[in-house]
Amino acid sequence: MPFVNIKITNDGVTSEKKAELIAGVTKLLQQVLGKNPATTVVIIDEVSTDNWGIGGEQVTARRKRGV
Amino acid sequence: MPFVNIKITNDGVTSEKKAELIAGVTKLLQQVLGKNPATTVVIIDEVSTDNWGIGGEQVTARRKRGV
Amino acid sequence: MPFVNIKITNDGVTSEKKAELIAGVTKLLQQVLGKNPATTVVIIDEVSTDNWGIGGEQVTARRKRGV
Amino acid sequence: MPFVNIKITNDGVTSEKKAELIAGVTKLLQQVLGKNPATTVVIIDEVSTDNWGIGGEQVTARRKRGV
Amino acid sequence: MPFVNIKITNDGVTSEKKAELIAGVTKLLQQVLGKNPATTVVIIDEVSTDNWGIGGEQVTARRKRGV
Amino acid sequence: MPFVNIKITNDGVTSEKKAELIAGVTKLLQQVLGKNPATTVVIIDEVSTDNWGIGGEQVTARRKRGV
Repeated sequence: MPFVNIKITNDGVTSEKKAELIAGVTKLLQQVLGKNPATTVVIIDEVSTDNWGIGGEQVTARRKRGV
Repeated sequence: MPFVNIKITNDGVTSEKKAELIAGVTKLLQQVLGKNPATTVVIIDEVSTDNWGIGGEQVTARRKRGV
Repeated sequence: MPFVNIKITNDGVTSEKKAELIAGVTKLLQQVLGKNPATTVVIIDEVSTDNWGIGGEQVTARRKRGV
Repeated sequence: MPFVNIKITNDGVTSEKKAELIAGVTKLLQQVLGKNPATTVVIIDEVSTDNWGIGGEQVTARRKRGV
Repeated sequence: MPFVNIKITNDGVTSEKKAELIAGVTKLLQQVLGKNPATTVVIIDEVSTDNWGIGGEQVTARRKRGV
Repeated sequence: MPFVNIKITNDGVTSEKKAELIAGVTKLLQQVLGKNPATTVVIIDEVSTDNWGIGGEQVTARRKRGV
């Protein structure tokens, strides 16, 4: 029954990679906490680098600076 | 003053249906808890079926399998 | 399969009232969008009035002022 | 290390305004709580006015009514 | 730079198990998407079974019924 | 009408500091985006350092190591 929300930058992650993430997190919750995979929900949010800030700065700007 | 976030799969829900959801949840909070509808906020997130997993699997894949 | 998060102030809401909210939101999503109640998840967060602000002010302070 | 999520309506906010928000929130957390800006994360969600409700009504409808 | 939020029921999960979850999710994001573990943030929320509903019913009630 | 969620570690932040955060974020949204402070909502979540991970490790463990 766990609920997992994963936020990543919007960098063209393929559907296959998303499937791997969903399978992997679900398996981890089963292995570590014994959670039933059938009712584990995972939602992936892809966020524009203009809308994601770290260090007081947009990720877009950081990447331009090569950080 | 409640805040409600509703996440659903991105299946072309009409604006009218969204309006019904917003009105319905707001009314429910008023009826059950006496909350003031004027300050109740509802946000609906529509999520791609590639980004939503249950049972360790993408909803996209489940639907293809007819689950 | 919808996921609903309801945030309310921490005012001693009874377990019965929470059960009503959960049942009501689940039914609403079934009626409006045809969602399967069996996989609808609802999580209620109760938030201290010190940690909830509106109008630039804590709810604690607003209540003291009778707003 | 704080994490901040800002949800606003999807009104064509410029990248420059988003950068100002990110810088401003990060600075505020440093000034008020002494938090390290290097590890402060800010995510801005832009939400369609059809998907945002207040007072039991979509923001789209409220704006049409001039509220 | 990913941000992960894991919501589980409040069942006395040990600090060691939480550490395993945090390490496991961080490693998964590195393996699947090449994300830098140093800036991956994971937050675990533990939710009362009175505040978690599935199938229109509190988890507390489901467990009493042996579901 | 913006909604802001601030997550910080649970380090005994005073009510006064929380009030400053709420006032500051609300003012920032007014200054940068012209948002109406009357309907700006801010919710602060305080998270145990056992439940917060960065770099694949609990904040509790990092602090013990002096990081």
